[in-house]
Amino acid sequence: MFHTMKRLKSEYEILRQKIYIVIYGSNTVAGRLFDLILLGIILLSVLLVMLESVEKLDAKYHSFILISEWIITISFTLEYLLRILCNKKPLTYIFSFYGIVDFISILPMYLSFFIPGSRMLSVIRALRLLRLFGILNLVHFTGQESQLKLAIKASRTKIIVFVYFVLIVSILLGAVMYVIEGKESGFTSIPTSIYWCIVTLTTVGYGDIAPVTTLGQIIASCIMIMGYGIIAVPTGIVTAEFAAAKRNQKFNETNRKCPSCTTIIYNEDARYCHHCGEKLAHE
Amino acid sequence: MFHTMKRLKSEYEILRQKIYIVIYGSNTVAGRLFDLILLGIILLSVLLVMLESVEKLDAKYHSFILISEWIITISFTLEYLLRILCNKKPLTYIFSFYGIVDFISILPMYLSFFIPGSRMLSVIRALRLLRLFGILNLVHFTGQESQLKLAIKASRTKIIVFVYFVLIVSILLGAVMYVIEGKESGFTSIPTSIYWCIVTLTTVGYGDIAPVTTLGQIIASCIMIMGYGIIAVPTGIVTAEFAAAKRNQKFNETNRKCPSCTTIIYNEDARYCHHCGEKLAHE
Amino acid sequence: MFHTMKRLKSEYEILRQKIYIVIYGSNTVAGRLFDLILLGIILLSVLLVMLESVEKLDAKYHSFILISEWIITISFTLEYLLRILCNKKPLTYIFSFYGIVDFISILPMYLSFFIPGSRMLSVIRALRLLRLFGILNLVHFTGQESQLKLAIKASRTKIIVFVYFVLIVSILLGAVMYVIEGKESGFTSIPTSIYWCIVTLTTVGYGDIAPVTTLGQIIASCIMIMGYGIIAVPTGIVTAEFAAAKRNQKFNETNRKCPSCTTIIYNEDARYCHHCGEKLAHE
Amino acid sequence: MFHTMKRLKSEYEILRQKIYIVIYGSNTVAGRLFDLILLGIILLSVLLVMLESVEKLDAKYHSFILISEWIITISFTLEYLLRILCNKKPLTYIFSFYGIVDFISILPMYLSFFIPGSRMLSVIRALRLLRLFGILNLVHFTGQESQLKLAIKASRTKIIVFVYFVLIVSILLGAVMYVIEGKESGFTSIPTSIYWCIVTLTTVGYGDIAPVTTLGQIIASCIMIMGYGIIAVPTGIVTAEFAAAKRNQKFNETNRKCPSCTTIIYNEDARYCHHCGEKLAHE
Repeated sequence: MFHTMKRLKSEYEILRQKIYIVIYGSNTVAGRLFDLILLGIILLSVLLVMLESVEKLDAKYHSFILISEWIITISFTLEYLLRILCNKKPLTYIFSFYGIVDFISILPMYLSFFIPGSRMLSVIRALRLLRLFGILNLVHFTGQESQLKLAIKASRTKIIVFVYFVLIVSILLGAVMYVIEGKESGFTSIPTSIYWCIVTLTTVGYGDIAPVTTLGQIIASCIMIMGYGIIAVPTGIVTAEFAAAKRNQKFNETNRKCPSCTTIIYNEDARYCHHCGEKLAHE
Repeated sequence: MFHTMKRLKSEYEILRQKIYIVIYGSNTVAGRLFDLILLGIILLSVLLVMLESVEKLDAKYHSFILISEWIITISFTLEYLLRILCNKKPLTYIFSFYGIVDFISILPMYLSFFIPGSRMLSVIRALRLLRLFGILNLVHFTGQESQLKLAIKASRTKIIVFVYFVLIVSILLGAVMYVIEGKESGFTSIPTSIYWCIVTLTTVGYGDIAPVTTLGQIIASCIMIMGYGIIAVPTGIVTAEFAAAKRNQKFNETNRKCPSCTTIIYNEDARYCHHCGEKLAHE
Repeated sequence: MFHTMKRLKSEYEILRQKIYIVIYGSNTVAGRLFDLILLGIILLSVLLVMLESVEKLDAKYHSFILISEWIITISFTLEYLLRILCNKKPLTYIFSFYGIVDFISILPMYLSFFIPGSRMLSVIRALRLLRLFGILNLVHFTGQESQLKLAIKASRTKIIVFVYFVLIVSILLGAVMYVIEGKESGFTSIPTSIYWCIVTLTTVGYGDIAPVTTLGQIIASCIMIMGYGIIAVPTGIVTAEFAAAKRNQKFNETNRKCPSCTTIIYNEDARYCHHCGEKLAHE
Repeated sequence: MFHTMKRLKSEYEILRQKIYIVIYGSNTVAGRLFDLILLGIILLSVLLVMLESVEKLDAKYHSFILISEWIITISFTLEYLLRILCNKKPLTYIFSFYGIVDFISILPMYLSFFIPGSRMLSVIRALRLLRLFGILNLVHFTGQESQLKLAIKASRTKIIVFVYFVLIVSILLGAVMYVIEGKESGFTSIPTSIYWCIVTLTTVGYGDIAPVTTLGQIIASCIMIMGYGIIAVPTGIVTAEFAAAKRNQKFNETNRKCPSCTTIIYNEDARYCHHCGEKLAHE
């Protein structure tokens, strides 16, 4: 009796580990296949939510879409439960970024029983597509991504300072344009003017609101040239940080020092110190 | 009697210093709190002016907005007076950038008694939001900001040359488009054509004016591709300057000093001080 | 009899080689002339297809355009056959990029007998214009192009990661805008909203769809500023890669070689060869 | 008699030189003043042509504008004659860039007697504003401008290759969109579609033509993201060239070599070689 339970438990443990490897890992064939199928289903489910919002398609294929969405939701629910069950530290998973995304991906469908229309929120499943990075990561992406991350992280503070500055400029110029152009040209209120100012500064330029007075057009021209000029600032920041991250990574990867004169050896293939001629050990 | 006055004066002096620390400093808890509350009130006041310009909201909450604005204006006035009174060199403050901004932030409300509609100018208070940089500066922003400032300062002349060149091109091409397109397509005068040309060169593209003739569209295409190409110029300038500023700062931070003359050694491989010839220890 | 055949064969071989040099080479006067004439005819044929699509011109010059296109198609067919015949390895040519382009350039005209309207596909001939690179290549372009290619190749992975990320953001924000703005403002379905989101993020901004609600305009402003900020990412990537490619090429061109083992010496200050330890002469 | 002529000739020569210094030089007070007044008149004359094209203003101030333009034209003519007369090599001036610009700046007004409406061409005077660079050049601009010129010159070939590539892509995608969207959406012909494609690729986005079919919108999205990505290419090119030009200029200005070990001395203030400790001569 005791032995049977022990055996059952150990069998369960083996099964748990097998499932864990399939679901979380990507090194085995089964794990890789699971990842690819999952990615396909996620893509399909995002596509379905998108198509459902197209009135013509929804009218035609309503029941087909509905049934497909329920099938997908149920498989996602099963997958979510399996992920919790086969994980040794289920709580870590549940409160991780992907854990939360997985949970709120299945929630809207069940909520739609109580709150009609909430099914539309299923589009949040698109966040699950970020898993692709995780899958590719294991192959050869790590270096690339970490370089990108480093550069973006380093330039974050500067970009925030820059955006804050752009917002203050937009508020001031928005108010000025509101006073100059008035309600006839579409500048109906200061918030609308600020919206127009951001549209212009970022060179988007919808044209739903556009200055018509001469003074307004002159100021608009100045804003545009300003926007044209200051687009250089975030670009300059990111580029400089990226170049630095690239340089640093290369240095950290390849450099060694000469044991006799401590000169830094930049060249990967170097066998002798370029400074003192000392023979270098191969790494 | 004399002692009482002296004591009063010294007490006043102590009070003045205490207020000074609260208003101008950010190292004490009270000073930090004051800064945060001030920033909150400024944000609120800018928001109020913005919302007042929205007709629907103004109709509904007119008296509420008006009273709030008066309360804010009076507190700003008190703050302004306190800043003058507790400062040892009041004139320096009054004619400083922030002193002038603080003054013209409260002016429009009082002017609105004599000139109706001038209250709208209160939006200039948005400039007070720049104080945020001052507050954050004291923590850890200095390096970042100074790097940005240096890069922008260094590229200023080049950007002005560039903008001047863009303006001449716009005048010439604007006149050409005015001749080609004529008044039917919206190119009603040379200034309007120049405005269109700037809208196109900066890739904003409102679409309120657009070429309709074939020749006009060909020239417009050329202007666009030109604009696409020359956007690279300011970006290149700022990026190069920024990278240089970054490199310099890094040098200042990381380089070793000569032990005998304390000159900064920029060159990593240096074995002798370039200033006094002292032999340097290897690191 | 046998001799005649052998002579004929050898004469044919000589002719084949002569034609080969004219068609494929650009070192001889005839080869260069052939290339230029071919380029001119390609340009002309692309122009013809373009003009044919303009209704007014087509009505006026229909038969002229039709005859010209048939003349061009027949000369292209002859050229295609000659290219196959005079090439020693005809299959390599047929399945090369240019071979396929050459074939599908002549196909649409012959297909137009069976499928009316397919003649429009002749515009694919524009791809033949890429031959210009081949022609110029032989003069002095190689360095430039390879630098460009290297930089684009190196940044490809990062750009794909970036585009994938932009698409996920567009799907999420598109769905959000669809819910907020509703069908009245033109956001008729999630795919349309995603289209609008990409139009805004890339700062194109047609204005055919534009937010009208306050909340929608606030979110649109955020998207624009975000787009303004993230345009810096691909620019930063390409610039950094390009600068690196440029640096490397410069190294390859300017650096000295070790006299004993001919390894390239990257380091300007090197006094010993890093590969064989040979002492280097100072330049 | 002979003496009088000689004296007259020598007096004329002195006068010629004096005028030459005033007109061509900017080192004397008179020369500087002349330059500034000339620049002011050029600006005024460009402004006049611009304002004349505004119908309302022209109706009101027609005779005033006409008289002013004649006064300006006559002074420009006098200036042009003086420039020829006081120059030792008048032909060099006449056929220089500025000589031709000066000539075609005065031509349109005289032509307007024979060809009505040609007066509008006076806007070409805007090119005379380029003289500002010449004036500033003499003070402290040289370095800046030459750096810009060098970077633009170096990236010219690459930018042309890039633009050629963009054009081929635009032709192909323009034809594709013409087939997909058809005449109802504004894609009336292939040239119009190509125009739309350039408008989209360069992120200008007028919105006068915009895709309405689902497939058209998907392709348009791809074009936009492509445009967003390839805007990085010219930026990367110019930035890399600019950084290189900056680096080279700095090196050329400041570097010396150590006389004993020939190491390059990067540091301007260096008094001792950082490599071998040799004392350096001051420059």
